[in-house]
Amino acid sequence: MMQLDATRMAHTQVDATRMANAIRGLAMDAVEKAKSGHPGLPMGAADMATVLFTQFLKFDAATPSWPDRDRFVLSAGHGSMLLYALLYLTGNSEMTLDQIKQFRQVDSLTPGHPENFRTNGIETTTGPLGQGISTAVGMALAEKMLAAEFGKKIVDHHTFVLASDGDLMEGVSQEAIAMAGHWKLNKMIVLYDDNGISIDGPTSISDSVDQVKRFKSAGWAAEKIDGQDQAAIAAAITRAKKSSKPTLIACRTTIGFGAPHKAGTAKAHGEALGAEELKAAKENLGISLEPFTVPDDVLKAWREAGSRGAAARQEWEGRLAELGSRKRAEFERRLRHERPASLAKAVRAYKKELLEKPMVAATRKSSEAVIEVIAGAMPMEFLAGSADLTGSNNNKAKSATAFSAKTPKGRFIHYGIREHGMAAAMNGIFLHGGFAPNGATFLVFTDYARPAMRLAALMGAGVVYVMTHDSIGLGEDGPTHQPVEHLAALRAIPNMRVFRPCDSIEVAECWELALNRIDGPTVLALTRQNLPQLRTNAPNENPCQQGAYELVAAQGEAKATLFASGSEVEIAVAAQKQLAERGIASRVVSVPSLELLLAQPEAKRAAIIGNAPVKVAIEAAVRWGWDAVIGQDGEFVGMHSFGESGPAKDLYKHFGITAEAAVNAVLKRVS
Amino acid sequence: MMQLDATRMAHTQVDATRMANAIRGLAMDAVEKAKSGHPGLPMGAADMATVLFTQFLKFDAATPSWPDRDRFVLSAGHGSMLLYALLYLTGNSEMTLDQIKQFRQVDSLTPGHPENFRTNGIETTTGPLGQGISTAVGMALAEKMLAAEFGKKIVDHHTFVLASDGDLMEGVSQEAIAMAGHWKLNKMIVLYDDNGISIDGPTSISDSVDQVKRFKSAGWAAEKIDGQDQAAIAAAITRAKKSSKPTLIACRTTIGFGAPHKAGTAKAHGEALGAEELKAAKENLGISLEPFTVPDDVLKAWREAGSRGAAARQEWEGRLAELGSRKRAEFERRLRHERPASLAKAVRAYKKELLEKPMVAATRKSSEAVIEVIAGAMPMEFLAGSADLTGSNNNKAKSATAFSAKTPKGRFIHYGIREHGMAAAMNGIFLHGGFAPNGATFLVFTDYARPAMRLAALMGAGVVYVMTHDSIGLGEDGPTHQPVEHLAALRAIPNMRVFRPCDSIEVAECWELALNRIDGPTVLALTRQNLPQLRTNAPNENPCQQGAYELVAAQGEAKATLFASGSEVEIAVAAQKQLAERGIASRVVSVPSLELLLAQPEAKRAAIIGNAPVKVAIEAAVRWGWDAVIGQDGEFVGMHSFGESGPAKDLYKHFGITAEAAVNAVLKRVS
Repeated sequence: MMQLDATRMAHTQVDATRMANAIRGLAMDAVEKAKSGHPGLPMGAADMATVLFTQFLKFDAATPSWPDRDRFVLSAGHGSMLLYALLYLTGNSEMTLDQIKQFRQVDSLTPGHPENFRTNGIETTTGPLGQGISTAVGMALAEKMLAAEFGKKIVDHHTFVLASDGDLMEGVSQEAIAMAGHWKLNKMIVLYDDNGISIDGPTSISDSVDQVKRFKSAGWAAEKIDGQDQAAIAAAITRAKKSSKPTLIACRTTIGFGAPHKAGTAKAHGEALGAEELKAAKENLGISLEPFTVPDDVLKAWREAGSRGAAARQEWEGRLAELGSRKRAEFERRLRHERPASLAKAVRAYKKELLEKPMVAATRKSSEAVIEVIAGAMPMEFLAGSADLTGSNNNKAKSATAFSAKTPKGRFIHYGIREHGMAAAMNGIFLHGGFAPNGATFLVFTDYARPAMRLAALMGAGVVYVMTHDSIGLGEDGPTHQPVEHLAALRAIPNMRVFRPCDSIEVAECWELALNRIDGPTVLALTRQNLPQLRTNAPNENPCQQGAYELVAAQGEAKATLFASGSEVEIAVAAQKQLAERGIASRVVSVPSLELLLAQPEAKRAAIIGNAPVKVAIEAAVRWGWDAVIGQDGEFVGMHSFGESGPAKDLYKHFGITAEAAVNAVLKRVS
Repeated sequence: MMQLDATRMAHTQVDATRMANAIRGLAMDAVEKAKSGHPGLPMGAADMATVLFTQFLKFDAATPSWPDRDRFVLSAGHGSMLLYALLYLTGNSEMTLDQIKQFRQVDSLTPGHPENFRTNGIETTTGPLGQGISTAVGMALAEKMLAAEFGKKIVDHHTFVLASDGDLMEGVSQEAIAMAGHWKLNKMIVLYDDNGISIDGPTSISDSVDQVKRFKSAGWAAEKIDGQDQAAIAAAITRAKKSSKPTLIACRTTIGFGAPHKAGTAKAHGEALGAEELKAAKENLGISLEPFTVPDDVLKAWREAGSRGAAARQEWEGRLAELGSRKRAEFERRLRHERPASLAKAVRAYKKELLEKPMVAATRKSSEAVIEVIAGAMPMEFLAGSADLTGSNNNKAKSATAFSAKTPKGRFIHYGIREHGMAAAMNGIFLHGGFAPNGATFLVFTDYARPAMRLAALMGAGVVYVMTHDSIGLGEDGPTHQPVEHLAALRAIPNMRVFRPCDSIEVAECWELALNRIDGPTVLALTRQNLPQLRTNAPNENPCQQGAYELVAAQGEAKATLFASGSEVEIAVAAQKQLAERGIASRVVSVPSLELLLAQPEAKRAAIIGNAPVKVAIEAAVRWGWDAVIGQDGEFVGMHSFGESGPAKDLYKHFGITAEAAVNAVLKRVS
């Protein structure tokens, strides 16, 4: 049984303890009412949150998206009631007590885990452990880069994170802290809720990592304090703000602090305390038994904390006004994720150029060429990077220099061999604002980055994944490196756009669509191997935006339609010619985005798919998803297994992904 | 320009250096011939490998799968020529010089990355970075558990890993080393090829982690040595074998050691050296310019090293013979992954029991009940574990105690919040042999484990993933925790089996199929919420093995077929009744495994799908894949977006996944 430590409480301000208890009370009540949720974290972390929000965090509750606010990321998203309580207490206009009473109900602003796209004042969606701390690295990175560009008068804020044991056990946290340490993101401060309890019991049953030593090994400042001692917390944050390194403050806390029987145990983690324990906890903490009650003086103190930053915000607005209209407009445009007007023009001109000088190249190389055009139009906001495959992914503009702690104006990021950390950081960069981030690796390694990519889709983050080596066409590296199921697996994610362009013109068009998509992520799947330029027109209207279009019409009434994406469109065109030689007319439909085709209005979709009696899909990947286009009895020329190691041409033959196979598929039906 | 250090070479045995140079020569030649591959790692790591294989590694090249051999895992799989050279040099009967000349060609035994399912003598498939070291943790764990059970006379070997910078940058490595340190897997020894070079250049452009400190923070012994100094390597391995902790030996090496211009640079990493540099390197190293040549005396020395372990193997066989026929048979059965005869009987009896006493329960609870039956039949080999969701995943048998360093006979593993590390460790446990591993988390978090799950499918590892909370039916945790695309994304992986059983009898049947599947992994997708028992028969033949079957026949000629999986089969049955009340006959087909249904011979598949004019699929997930069953014009009742936070029943209504919706879908067509 846990008792409050009277000595310890004497060391802290009574008022501040009462303020922390207001968080505890709301958290207990909301979880109790929902009969579901996590009271333990908010109760344990209430002191940290109180110190941070009343003494340090630069924010203005009335203007939650003020650009130069400090960011607070609740990486331990299951403790969402901590955030909702803070939003309500500090005076966020939408977060009413009614919303708190609707905790975890459909359509409320208080879902089980924090959702930034739903609730104003929440910086990022968290819940899947490890994501918050890794996303925060991207926010702190964006701050550093933007500050170097626009000056500290305009950009000068901290990124605070509250992380749990689980966040630090997840592997992605290692990628994140290694990057933050390497980049010396000294304005990132992690409060680690070191409560020693996870769902299965004491963390000692599964863990014995010394987190302070671990973070130090990654270039962080790190120390351990009593996380229930508000003075100690304040002193540690003060030290952290002065450090030249990012800082971990391991705060020893008691999960479910205040609950007489469940505190310090896994029972306080993920379920309602129950009426009896709740009552006893409230008595123990000296707070009202009436649910959802905050004493007037406590609420007033919290509201004052919530408006503490108003003056700072006004001063900042003054400085922004002094910036000069042009630079100010640029800053604001960047934060809105609006593309410069010059982009569309430049891409349009480049497409015309391609028509005149067709390009035979791998689409990763076509992409490199388009990137030159894009980076020309938006050199400071186009923020590329690669997980240590820069020369293979070809997404570095010639003009871009490497970002580092010493060169914060560099616009190419060497993420290291950290696909997951890269994707999470990109989420943070986008959410922070000011940049159009894109990150690169081989398509097969989207598997490593998937949890962060899913969050991008859920949050509607407009990031771009440059995924090269997109099929068995990568050749000799073999099945561990050859994606076969990845197109299907990515297309299945709601709000994820997957483009697999077939030539240099489609590459330009898909890049433009990707950059203009600021409400969701885009995968560009690009080849290692050379492809011809197939397009013979470059209309101002972008045909890729409907997912698919007739690339080559049939000469005569079409007996078959050949659908293909990316590198297999070349095969479809060759098959079409062979069929024509046999007197069989067929259409070729290029499908740069299968899921976008399927999302078209029924009539448009039907028109694109057409009604030729035989439908063949050609894609060097598994069939999943294609039945929606070609039907159950459609012919599929593609992969039915993992790949193999060998030269690309040999593999296409080995697996029967050839024009001859497509022709035979048609001939089987047309006789 | 790099020069060989004459002083250093004087410190090492000339013969051993010539032996290492044989590896270097073969690696250079094979990559040169293939015009593709990675010469740098084998050249830099040749000294480590020579010391390990000639002085320490317990193996017998003539019997590469002798159970008590030391394991050697090349985590840096791109350096595959190191392994192939070692296999050839030590005398593996299949690894001929001809195979080495076929490096990276279709159908060779020498693919781009090592494939254990293709090449005898390779312990695990590597290439995706971080996997080897994490898989090795499972091997070392299995060794510890099996040694505790069968005694050190039968099981007593080490697990050696050669890991690269990239392996250690990948987040999964943190999960792996945290587990190994916590479990005190002192027989795991990692040689870290600390060459300071990755693809993008010096690792200093992306990394500044102190790996020695990092590993120490995770409970490892760790030291730094000169990795080109064979005496130092031998001394370090000797120390490591005496440690009570797992050991990291950071070996400072020169990538491409011996190549005069490219050594120590990224240019030596991933491409052929080119004729000129190759010649210069060979001259520098003093080896024959003739490709694929190994001097007779050097080859002889290597062959002696390869048969060094023959005596130890024979002695071990003697000890095994002394074990007693019953225990020996048990040991051998376990290593063959053969299930005990009692398993099938027990499951059969349990199914009959369920028929008599139907069970209304969440399928995760039905699974818990089946696990009691299974663990009764195979208590020591059924090796469950959870990524910190034990009480929610319900995969712990009552009799199972927790595994720990001090309780190695425990058969439940608290993996911590490490889904990826868990899945990789399970691969290692399976590959080691002796156990039927299953690991649990929420279905949505398969995203975290996906790279290791894909390797399981590629390698044909018979592991089981117990994935609970399999849809919006998990309720309040909201969209971050609700899988909607995961069934589709998993089904798309070749050789991955996904079962989503609808009631307690299907759960028993799917568990039996999963355990008997020793050539590939199985996902069991299970509900959080209660389901009725729908099956009214329990035939000895397992109807789930064909992926789908008619659960409830139509009364009269079927106008519609309702397909569903898992929790939605209940909805299909309710819809069928409502349709019957309107005089519309329909069938219900339960689809525990969509991809298994699609893999049936055409006639069988067609028979199960049937030819009722209206086809409706009901699944609380995205449509991807279902068109192959219901057709493009089929009706789908399911998810079209991410989920929401709220009670499960509210969510099913909110998203329109109800019997009424299914009835309406039929009525639209039958009028």
